[in-house]
Amino acid sequence: MKAQDVGVWCVPCRGPADLSGVQALAEAGELDPRDIVAVMGKTEGNGCVNDHTRDFATMAWQHYLSSHLQCTPAEVEARVSLVMSGGTEGVLSPHFTVITRRFIVGAPAADDKRLVVGVAQTRTFLPEEIGRRAQIEATAEAVRGAMRDAGIEDPADVHFVQIKCPLLTSDRMADAAGRGAAPVTQDTYASMGFSRGASALGVAVALGELPADTVHDGLVLADGAPWSGRASVSAGIELENNVVIVLGEAAGAVSAFRIGHAVMKDAVDAQSVRTMFRESFGLDPERDADEVARRLVNLLAKAEASPDGRVRGARHTMLNDSDINATRHARAAVGGVLGALVGRTRLYVSGGAEHQGPPGGGPVAAILHI
Amino acid sequence: MKAQDVGVWCVPCRGPADLSGVQALAEAGELDPRDIVAVMGKTEGNGCVNDHTRDFATMAWQHYLSSHLQCTPAEVEARVSLVMSGGTEGVLSPHFTVITRRFIVGAPAADDKRLVVGVAQTRTFLPEEIGRRAQIEATAEAVRGAMRDAGIEDPADVHFVQIKCPLLTSDRMADAAGRGAAPVTQDTYASMGFSRGASALGVAVALGELPADTVHDGLVLADGAPWSGRASVSAGIELENNVVIVLGEAAGAVSAFRIGHAVMKDAVDAQSVRTMFRESFGLDPERDADEVARRLVNLLAKAEASPDGRVRGARHTMLNDSDINATRHARAAVGGVLGALVGRTRLYVSGGAEHQGPPGGGPVAAILHI
Amino acid sequence: MKAQDVGVWCVPCRGPADLSGVQALAEAGELDPRDIVAVMGKTEGNGCVNDHTRDFATMAWQHYLSSHLQCTPAEVEARVSLVMSGGTEGVLSPHFTVITRRFIVGAPAADDKRLVVGVAQTRTFLPEEIGRRAQIEATAEAVRGAMRDAGIEDPADVHFVQIKCPLLTSDRMADAAGRGAAPVTQDTYASMGFSRGASALGVAVALGELPADTVHDGLVLADGAPWSGRASVSAGIELENNVVIVLGEAAGAVSAFRIGHAVMKDAVDAQSVRTMFRESFGLDPERDADEVARRLVNLLAKAEASPDGRVRGARHTMLNDSDINATRHARAAVGGVLGALVGRTRLYVSGGAEHQGPPGGGPVAAILHI
Amino acid sequence: MKAQDVGVWCVPCRGPADLSGVQALAEAGELDPRDIVAVMGKTEGNGCVNDHTRDFATMAWQHYLSSHLQCTPAEVEARVSLVMSGGTEGVLSPHFTVITRRFIVGAPAADDKRLVVGVAQTRTFLPEEIGRRAQIEATAEAVRGAMRDAGIEDPADVHFVQIKCPLLTSDRMADAAGRGAAPVTQDTYASMGFSRGASALGVAVALGELPADTVHDGLVLADGAPWSGRASVSAGIELENNVVIVLGEAAGAVSAFRIGHAVMKDAVDAQSVRTMFRESFGLDPERDADEVARRLVNLLAKAEASPDGRVRGARHTMLNDSDINATRHARAAVGGVLGALVGRTRLYVSGGAEHQGPPGGGPVAAILHI
Repeated sequence: MKAQDVGVWCVPCRGPADLSGVQALAEAGELDPRDIVAVMGKTEGNGCVNDHTRDFATMAWQHYLSSHLQCTPAEVEARVSLVMSGGTEGVLSPHFTVITRRFIVGAPAADDKRLVVGVAQTRTFLPEEIGRRAQIEATAEAVRGAMRDAGIEDPADVHFVQIKCPLLTSDRMADAAGRGAAPVTQDTYASMGFSRGASALGVAVALGELPADTVHDGLVLADGAPWSGRASVSAGIELENNVVIVLGEAAGAVSAFRIGHAVMKDAVDAQSVRTMFRESFGLDPERDADEVARRLVNLLAKAEASPDGRVRGARHTMLNDSDINATRHARAAVGGVLGALVGRTRLYVSGGAEHQGPPGGGPVAAILHI
Repeated sequence: MKAQDVGVWCVPCRGPADLSGVQALAEAGELDPRDIVAVMGKTEGNGCVNDHTRDFATMAWQHYLSSHLQCTPAEVEARVSLVMSGGTEGVLSPHFTVITRRFIVGAPAADDKRLVVGVAQTRTFLPEEIGRRAQIEATAEAVRGAMRDAGIEDPADVHFVQIKCPLLTSDRMADAAGRGAAPVTQDTYASMGFSRGASALGVAVALGELPADTVHDGLVLADGAPWSGRASVSAGIELENNVVIVLGEAAGAVSAFRIGHAVMKDAVDAQSVRTMFRESFGLDPERDADEVARRLVNLLAKAEASPDGRVRGARHTMLNDSDINATRHARAAVGGVLGALVGRTRLYVSGGAEHQGPPGGGPVAAILHI
Repeated sequence: MKAQDVGVWCVPCRGPADLSGVQALAEAGELDPRDIVAVMGKTEGNGCVNDHTRDFATMAWQHYLSSHLQCTPAEVEARVSLVMSGGTEGVLSPHFTVITRRFIVGAPAADDKRLVVGVAQTRTFLPEEIGRRAQIEATAEAVRGAMRDAGIEDPADVHFVQIKCPLLTSDRMADAAGRGAAPVTQDTYASMGFSRGASALGVAVALGELPADTVHDGLVLADGAPWSGRASVSAGIELENNVVIVLGEAAGAVSAFRIGHAVMKDAVDAQSVRTMFRESFGLDPERDADEVARRLVNLLAKAEASPDGRVRGARHTMLNDSDINATRHARAAVGGVLGALVGRTRLYVSGGAEHQGPPGGGPVAAILHI
Repeated sequence: MKAQDVGVWCVPCRGPADLSGVQALAEAGELDPRDIVAVMGKTEGNGCVNDHTRDFATMAWQHYLSSHLQCTPAEVEARVSLVMSGGTEGVLSPHFTVITRRFIVGAPAADDKRLVVGVAQTRTFLPEEIGRRAQIEATAEAVRGAMRDAGIEDPADVHFVQIKCPLLTSDRMADAAGRGAAPVTQDTYASMGFSRGASALGVAVALGELPADTVHDGLVLADGAPWSGRASVSAGIELENNVVIVLGEAAGAVSAFRIGHAVMKDAVDAQSVRTMFRESFGLDPERDADEVARRLVNLLAKAEASPDGRVRGARHTMLNDSDINATRHARAAVGGVLGALVGRTRLYVSGGAEHQGPPGGGPVAAILHI
C-alpha cells in the first residue's frame, strides 16, 4: 500500500515572477518540482480587478514547471493548481506556499493523522453563471472530488479549502449581453465578491455546513446567509473556472506536517487563533513563541471588512473609502493581527471573505511541522 | 494650593465635523467645553497631503468652541490645541480624544502620580525652516514650555508628546523659491516626513534623549539617527507652526486617570505593549480583558513602514506601493495589532514615525481610568 | 414690471473652504452676497463616497452666508442652492461658480433672450427611494418648480439643470434594513450612480425628453435607457434630498450673460462643443481664442467612462481600475479635452453621467458674457 | 547599396501579455517577427514603482520572440529594444507600437526623407549613478550610437528618442548603502523622476540642445534647467541600464512612413500639435479628420504635471494628490487633449516629462503612413 507524503514550503520572492527561491530548493534537492500539486501565491498587486501580478506569477510558474513536467506552459494549468492571491498590504510579505505530494510504498504509518492534499477543477463558467447557483453546485462537486483525491472521507478532517474563481470584466459582461444573458452585476469589482461568495457556498454544501437543497441564485451575498468555516476563495481575472485545493488530515499519511483551523469572529479576533494553537498543537503563541516560529509553515487566512460597518461596535470606514478598496484595508488589518500573534509576516491573508466565516470574520488554518 | 484635575474622553463621531457626541456629553453635564485644553482627533481622510478632513474637523471645533469660549472661531486656535491626525485605515474608528483641565482648590492629594497635561505652540515657520534645525530647536523650546504648563519637572514623567506640524505645499515652496530660499524637499508628500522628523528630534532634545549640541540640519531623516520614545507627530496642511501637547504624570494632581508608555520595536511588536500593561498597570490584556476594556480610555500610537523594507526579516511592499502611501499601510497594520491586543478599534494610531521610536517601530501610550 | 438680472462669477479658491476670492468681490462691491441664489463648486476631493471636501466647502459657505443673510448656518441651505462637485483631476482647477439674481424695476428689455436661473428642492428621500421611481418623480416635479422660478416656459429654453443628490452610506443602508426595506444596492460607491441616474431621468421627464408614464424603478441604469441632454447630477454624502438649479434663457431678462449647450457624443468629442460655440455664439475656439478667453465665464460639463469599455472603438481601462475610480479617470480626460478647446482649466467637469447624455458622452453648457 | 525599410504597427492588446494581435499580423504575413527591432508598449498598470504590467509584458514578448529568434528569452533583450510604459489613464487604450527594420537591396530611393530607426543600450548603472552625471553621459553616448545605427547624421533629423531607464527600489538603495554609497534620493517614486531627468539630459547633450561641458550631478531636476524637445523617457523596475530608440528621417530610406514632432508648451497645448500636422504633413486635424485617421500610426507624447502647480495660470491639484500620483493625472489629461485632436485613443502618452519639453509641457511625435 502507498502512503501519502505531502510537503509544504513557504518560499519568499522578490517579485511576482521571481522563482529563484523555488529553484534554489529544487537545485538543493529538497523539493522535486515534478511533485508539486499546488502553489498558493501571495503576490504584491492590489488584489482587485486589475491586479496583473496574479497572472504574471502564473505565467512564470507555467514556464518554470513546463520544462520539469515536459509539457507546454498552457498544459501546466491542468496538472498543477496555481492559485495566486493578490495583495500584501501592511506588513504582509510576498511569497509562495508550495505543496508537493508523492506516494510512498512501505512507509511506516504515523500514529496520528497527518497532512493530506487533493485538487480538482470545475468546468469553465459562462459569465452569467458567476455568483449564482450554477457556480455553487459545480464548486461543491469539485470539492467532493478534491476530498476523494486527498483520501479524506470525513468532512471533519477537511481544514482548509482554497479556491480560485473568475471575475467579470467589461468584456465578459459584453459577451453575456451579446447572448441576451444578464450577469449578476454590472460592476467588475463587485463581481469578485459574487464569485467568491458562490464558491464559498459550494464548499459549505460539500462539507455539510449548508443543506444542498437550500441552494438558490439569491443566496449569494444575501443578508444573514450561511457560511463555511473552512472556505478560502480568491477571485482573479486570469481564469474562467474554479480551481479547488483541499487541505486536511488523514490516517495513514506519512507527511511531516499537521494542519488545524479556527474561525475568527471578527477582524481583531486573535483569541480564536490563539486558542486553536493551544488546543490543536499544544502551543501558546506567547509562551512558546520560539517553537511556534520554528514549526509554523504558514497561516492561511481570510479577511474582510465587516459588512455592517462596525468592528466591536465601533464604526470603520473601509466600506466608504473610494481610494482604497475594502479588501485591501482588511488584509492590512488582519495581517497585523496575525503577524503580531505569530511574530512573522510571511502569511497568506486573502481578502474578500463572503460566506467564508461569519460576516467580518474568516477562517484561519495553520500548517505546522511535526 | 490648587490641584490639577485632567479629564479624558474618547468620543466617537459620524464624520470629520460631527461633534454631536461631544455636545451630548456637554449637555449631560459630564464635560464643560470651557475646560477643554486639547483635542486629538482621528479623522477619516488619507492622512497625507490632500487630507482636508483635518481642517474640516478643525473648523467644526473652532465654531463649536467659539460660542462657549466667547471668542471668534479664529481665536479658538490660540486657546485650545486642536490636533487632527488623518487616516483610519483598516479597523481603526474615527473619534476625538478630548482633554480637559481645571484646577481644584482644597482637593485631597492622591497617593500616587496622576495624569497631567500641558500645551504650547512654536512661532510660525518659514517654508525653508521645515525639516531643519530651526524647527527642531523651536520645538524643543515649546516642549519645555508645555512641561512647565503641565507641572512636570522630571522628563521621566513625560509619557507622550503630541505635536502637530506643517507640511510644504506647492504654494509654500513657490513662496520660498520667490525669496531665493530652498525648501528641504520639492516633494509635498516627502515634506511631511521631514517636518515630523524635525519635530520629533525637538522632543528628543527636550526630554534629554538627544544632546542639544548635536543638532544640525542634516540630522533629519539621516540614517541611524536618534529617536524619541515618547514623541508623536502629525503633519497637516492647515497650520504653519508646531502645536505641542505634553501628557505625563505628576504628584499632587487629582485626575482620575493614569498614563504609561511603551516603545514598539517594529510594526508587529504587541509584546512590548502587553508588557507595559502588566508592568505599569498590573493588567494582562488577555486574562484581564474585561478590566482593560472598562478602564482603557485610549491608546496613542505611532506607526510607520520599516524604512529598510523588512519586518522580522521578511520583505514588505509598503514603500514600493505607488497606489497607497506607506503611512496608510502602516496605520492599517498597527491598528490591527493594537486592536487585537485590547479588543477595541477606537484607537489613536498615527502614521509617519520618523525619529519617533526606532525605525519601523514607534511609541505607544495608554491612558487608563484609575 | 421687474426684469431678472442674473450674474455669474467663476472664482478661484486655494482650498475647499477658501472664500477669500468671493469676499474680495463682495468687498469691492462687485457682488452682493445677499443676491446669491446658487453656488456650483468644484472641490478637490475624490468626488466619490468619502469626499469630505464637498461638505467642508458647504460648511464654509453656510458660515459665510449666514452673517450676510442674518440666519443660522443651517438655515442657509434652504435659501441658497449649494452644489459641490468633488474632483479636479488632471488639469482641472478648483473654483466656485457663483450665481446671483435680482429683479430690476424699469430696466430696458434686451432684444434677445438672456440668462435666467431658478432653484428648487425635493423632499428628503428614504434610503430605499434612492435610485428608484420615487426619486425620478420628485426630481421632475422640482425641475418644473425651478423652471417656474426661473421664468422659463418652454423647455427648449432650458440649457442646463444641475442637481445635487444623496448617496447611500453604510449607516443609511443599515437604517433601511432596520425598517425591512431594501436599498437599490449594497455598494456605497455604486449608490452614487443610481442616485445620479434617477435624478437625470427626472430632468428628462420634466424637459419632455422622456414620457412620464414610462418611468419605473427598473429604468435606472438599465441598458439602452433614455437620457437627458441637459442634466448634470452630482452625488454627495452631505445631503438627503435633491437640490435643483435650472439655467436657461428667457426674453425680458436683462442679464449680461447668455448660455448655450451641446451634447458630447463621447469623451473625446470636442467637435460638438466647437460647433456649439460657432452656432450659438458665432465664435470659433481656435480662430477667436482671445475673445473666447475674454467672454467665457465657465463650461459646465459631465463626464463618464463609456460603459461599453470602449472609446472610438478602442478598449479603455477605466472600468477595470480598482485603484482609481472611473469617475476620476473620466473627469481627468474630459478636463483635458475641454481645457485644450477653450485654453483654460478652471472648468466645471463633473463625473458620473448616468442618463446624462449618451453612454460615454455628456451634456456641456457654456456661459458667456454678452 | 542597401536601403532601410522601417515598418510601424499600432497593435491593440487585451492585457499586458496579450500578443494575439501581433501573432495574427505575423501569421497573415504582414509582419515578420524576426525584423522587429523595437517595441514600445503602453500597458495598463499605474506607471509608477510597483507597476508589474511592464515586466509582465516584457516577459511575454521575450517568450514570443525567443522562438522566432531562436535564442533564450533572456537573450531577446539584447537583440530587441522592449520599452514598456505603464499607465493608460482616462481614455488611453493599451497597445504595442511594433517597429521593424530590414535592409533592401536595389530598392528605388524615395524623393524625400523617410522614417529610420536605430537602437542602443548603455551599460548597467550602479544605484548611486541613477539621476546623476554618470547616467547623463552614458545616455548621450548611447543616443549617438543609436543615431549611427539609424543612419542619421544631422541631429535635426532626429524626431523622437525613446528611452527606458531604471528606478531605485528599497533593495537597490540598501545595496548602495551597503557599499557606503548614497543614492540621489531615498524615495522610490521620486527616483523615477531623477532617472528620467538624467536620461533626458543625455538626449539633450547628444542632440546639441545642451553643451556637454555644462553637465554636472546637480543639473538633474534643478530649477530652470535645460530640456530636450525630442526626448521621451520611461522608468521601470525591470531593468538596470538605459535602452535607447532613436526615431528620425533620412534620405535614401524606403520606408512607407514619415515622422514629425512638436513640443507642447503645457498640458493643454493642442495648438502646437495641430500646427505640426499642418506644417509637417499638410493636414488639418479638424478639416482632414478622415485622412488623419487613416494615415496616423501613432502619436508618441510625454505628459507631466506642471511643477509650478499651475496650468494657464490656474492652480492644479496634481502635485498635492496623495491618492493618485501626478504622472497618472498628467497622462489622463494629455490623453484627453490628444485623443480629441486626432479622434482616437490608442496613443502612446507617457508620464513624467522631467527635462523632456518645457516644465509642464512635453515633446510629441507623429508617425504617419505616406
